[in-house]
Amino acid sequence: MEFTAETLNQIVSAVSYPDKDAMDRAEKRQAELAKPPGSLGVLERLSIQLAGITGKVKNRISKKELLVFCSDNGVVEEGVACSPQSVTVAQTINLTRGKTGASAIAKDFGVKLRVCDVGVNADIREGAVINRKIAYGTKNIAKTAAMTRSQAIQAILTGAELAITSAKERADIIGIGEMGIGNTTTSAAVLSVLTGAPAKDVTGRGGGITDEGYIKKLSVVETAIKINNPDPNDAVDVLSKVGGFDIAAMAGAFIGAARMRIPVVIDGFISAVAALCAVRICPNVRYYLIPSHASFEIGYRIAMEQLGLTPLFDLQMRLGEGSGCPIAMMILDSACAVMNNMATFAEAEINDEYLEPIRKKDSFTVKEN
Amino acid sequence: MEFTAETLNQIVSAVSYPDKDAMDRAEKRQAELAKPPGSLGVLERLSIQLAGITGKVKNRISKKELLVFCSDNGVVEEGVACSPQSVTVAQTINLTRGKTGASAIAKDFGVKLRVCDVGVNADIREGAVINRKIAYGTKNIAKTAAMTRSQAIQAILTGAELAITSAKERADIIGIGEMGIGNTTTSAAVLSVLTGAPAKDVTGRGGGITDEGYIKKLSVVETAIKINNPDPNDAVDVLSKVGGFDIAAMAGAFIGAARMRIPVVIDGFISAVAALCAVRICPNVRYYLIPSHASFEIGYRIAMEQLGLTPLFDLQMRLGEGSGCPIAMMILDSACAVMNNMATFAEAEINDEYLEPIRKKDSFTVKEN
Repeated sequence: MEFTAETLNQIVSAVSYPDKDAMDRAEKRQAELAKPPGSLGVLERLSIQLAGITGKVKNRISKKELLVFCSDNGVVEEGVACSPQSVTVAQTINLTRGKTGASAIAKDFGVKLRVCDVGVNADIREGAVINRKIAYGTKNIAKTAAMTRSQAIQAILTGAELAITSAKERADIIGIGEMGIGNTTTSAAVLSVLTGAPAKDVTGRGGGITDEGYIKKLSVVETAIKINNPDPNDAVDVLSKVGGFDIAAMAGAFIGAARMRIPVVIDGFISAVAALCAVRICPNVRYYLIPSHASFEIGYRIAMEQLGLTPLFDLQMRLGEGSGCPIAMMILDSACAVMNNMATFAEAEINDEYLEPIRKKDSFTVKEN
Repeated sequence: MEFTAETLNQIVSAVSYPDKDAMDRAEKRQAELAKPPGSLGVLERLSIQLAGITGKVKNRISKKELLVFCSDNGVVEEGVACSPQSVTVAQTINLTRGKTGASAIAKDFGVKLRVCDVGVNADIREGAVINRKIAYGTKNIAKTAAMTRSQAIQAILTGAELAITSAKERADIIGIGEMGIGNTTTSAAVLSVLTGAPAKDVTGRGGGITDEGYIKKLSVVETAIKINNPDPNDAVDVLSKVGGFDIAAMAGAFIGAARMRIPVVIDGFISAVAALCAVRICPNVRYYLIPSHASFEIGYRIAMEQLGLTPLFDLQMRLGEGSGCPIAMMILDSACAVMNNMATFAEAEINDEYLEPIRKKDSFTVKEN
């Protein structure tokens, strides 16, 4: 893949609207299943969304993948993070060993993990980490642009390429996570610009900084936006000026999944900001997005409102890494199970012959399979 | 098992307080795992609760079961339900065939289903249904008591016995569901008596009755309480007068699981009311309860407040049958995966030697496993 604006445009313009006919057929079948109308709530909506994505009423999401993009952020030199930068590389490697939160859950759930270095500030001697390093971390957004526009496009296309590869290798669904000390700061800056929300409404405590650290973080977000002055109508500009390689690659992965017509799961705050970037670059991406958990980070809610999505569950998690995605995939599994295997009213024989109350002690049989 | 008050008392008095020492050790380990403190939210709390239940810090919930208690309710002759009574027997049988919502999900997730007839108004010719019928449905609570006190104890002990059997057959967790047309009416009556909440605050639309049907249902709940006058301080009295065989058996199953020190999952509204009955009969049961989804039924919230529990997810489901339980079990699975497999800070080597920022282009390795 050539990492050019033209390649990105080609991918973006190939992301199609969902299959309305398949959605209609799915909705019709949901109405025929033997249950009170709407009683499976979000599972019904998910099954209909999935039909629109794949074009099929009955789906299986057997092969599940979690793509985790890892990168460092120059802004950590401002003291905005509670962990040292070296945690990024250590956890990048630990992810591939199933030793972090998200990777432990993914392994348990049979979700294949692909960990991609798009900008970790170290050379990684670990074959399991996919090396797509764009630079050794971004520049400090409190002083200058995080990266060049061409680097932003490279990061987006790197993410898109990985998602497209997953889909070509028959992944039925992918989740998008990250590892990068300092990336709640960059995410807050991106979200503030894209939505116009004041920095204080989108800046949280990340891994858990002190009061003093929080005041610093807020001021850094404000400064970064002021000095870089990104164009809110150009998400690539926003990503390049106040974002990070991780967020940009994640945005690209959402676009790549949509391009290949597979559902793509949002994790927490950073993933939601990346999804919003993806939708700003390519509005049709929204139809392919599956939310997972409500992140504890305050900006998450604003990002989700902008996306028009409601999280599926709330476990008060704020770990990142894609840790919420495997659980969301299981919920989607259950939506498929219902659509594929429940009996319709006709099949359940809850029809006219059942409408009379059964007399006591009458024996009762149903149609044999 | 002899179905006597004495047997019930013996089981109740054998339900123990959780293992505080194991909980302390689990909490200590959570603090050592390589993540921002508290960043796994509810997963951390669940892993600590589980340690208290089993006495072990590292747990696996490999063998999962869903117990579904099926029964008819005489009150349906008042016109409180939107489905005919015959749906109970049809869906009881369909449950064993994996054709209903909960059974389709359970099958997909590898959760073993056990379906028990405690009072269906028909003889069931289907070997897969466990026959523990107490009567062919309850009496109409709008006119008289649903059952005798001795029948209530029989139902409770039947549920307890099934849960105890599951645990003896090495189930690591069980979920509690139901099938019984009319049981949102009986549940509302039980909940109103136990909590003192007015009928209108606990009576919902169940499967989806009309406005006219709803007014009737509300009046039936009020009448049932008025004419039966159950003792709010005696949950067995409440169950026998305005409850059902299903709710009583479910309450017993919660007690039986706690007796065997295995976690037990609450489904939706009816299951939550049964759990509250169990806790009123045996307060220590509360430590063994795992919530699942927020039911759409209005009384659910009140029952959960009384139990001091918050649902893990909200998929706007109101199907019953135990349909929310398999997803909650998966969430518990992920809590176990984290506790069992995440690296501690020491193991992740995110310690002193990592505290200096890594110089660019320095190569970096971590400890080999």
